[in-house]
Amino acid sequence: MNQEYPSTLLEKAVREFSKLPGIGRKTATRLVLHLLRKKEAEVAAFSDAMITLKREAKYCTICHSISDTDICPVCANPLRDHSIICVVENIQDVMAVENTMQYRGVYHVLGGVISPMDGVSPSDLQIESLVSRVAEGGVKEIILALSSTMEGDTTNFYIYRKLSKYDVKLSVIARGISVGDELEYADEVTLGSSIINRTPFGGKTL
Amino acid sequence: MNQEYPSTLLEKAVREFSKLPGIGRKTATRLVLHLLRKKEAEVAAFSDAMITLKREAKYCTICHSISDTDICPVCANPLRDHSIICVVENIQDVMAVENTMQYRGVYHVLGGVISPMDGVSPSDLQIESLVSRVAEGGVKEIILALSSTMEGDTTNFYIYRKLSKYDVKLSVIARGISVGDELEYADEVTLGSSIINRTPFGGKTL
Repeated sequence: MNQEYPSTLLEKAVREFSKLPGIGRKTATRLVLHLLRKKEAEVAAFSDAMITLKREAKYCTICHSISDTDICPVCANPLRDHSIICVVENIQDVMAVENTMQYRGVYHVLGGVISPMDGVSPSDLQIESLVSRVAEGGVKEIILALSSTMEGDTTNFYIYRKLSKYDVKLSVIARGISVGDELEYADEVTLGSSIINRTPFGGKTL
Repeated sequence: MNQEYPSTLLEKAVREFSKLPGIGRKTATRLVLHLLRKKEAEVAAFSDAMITLKREAKYCTICHSISDTDICPVCANPLRDHSIICVVENIQDVMAVENTMQYRGVYHVLGGVISPMDGVSPSDLQIESLVSRVAEGGVKEIILALSSTMEGDTTNFYIYRKLSKYDVKLSVIARGISVGDELEYADEVTLGSSIINRTPFGGKTL
């Protein structure tokens, strides 16, 4: 749609908004005109929050998650199990695992996965610093929680190779049928994986 | 979802984003983390576009649409028919009508519709300035293109009363079945309206 905007300022704001993922020009226009109806102080609060985050956001020097301090709250928490490290792609994944309330270990944010197609090589990711954490000792287990894609598998294998000389257990998160999902709609690979990796039930071991 | 954010700066940015209509916390987090991965200059361009728009946006002194100048491009265009004014609620509506490429008249943006429930009275809207435009002469027709809601109808009637002493034609946009829609799914009021307001076909008048 080659929509003509009555104002270049409006058009510029819409163009910026529509660069965001999943935001088309129509939605961008709606959001911008919504903001335009707000008081200047509210719009300033919106704008400032973004640029302040970008300028002042720190990353944890241990796990590379976003943090207000040099060491993030998880890494600084003595009640967390620092001998287990969950390796994830990005900050959203840290938040997703935290929301499960099932994990008491710490994290390591890679910043992506190895993807030659997208020009992401191992040196672009926080893999060396993961190896350093393991080399320092005290780490018993690494849980790999990356995407189950070709790139995720490649990254898993790369990390496995890098850590092979250290005495540390490696595991990957279980792949299986989502809770509430019906078997007939599951893809074969997932269903197959869920059968192979079946878990004991009723107190007996397999 | 009582999601804990690892950074207060991140949380603040997400909170600002999720104030926008149709943007929940999950989408807001995704958008903010997308921006965070961009270069500082890009984030600054995004932030600046919003606050610059709010601070510097002008409104046409004639039709009250957004404009970079005191008189908007439509009102300043001598090729437009200044004797026909299309009355709309907001700037989006001006853009929507412009996109049809079917209208060569000018506009009048009310800034909303009369809604006692929402505390919007006639004095909050640009109704007096519409009456002034008509009083100045040269206007032959007013096309009312407001929402077909109780509030829109109320506003139509209010404008009708205000303009009754002037020699100006009043019309409302046609309500009917959307192009491509099937009759059986249309609501009764719209279908009834489309029958009552049927248009000649095949060159013969009704």
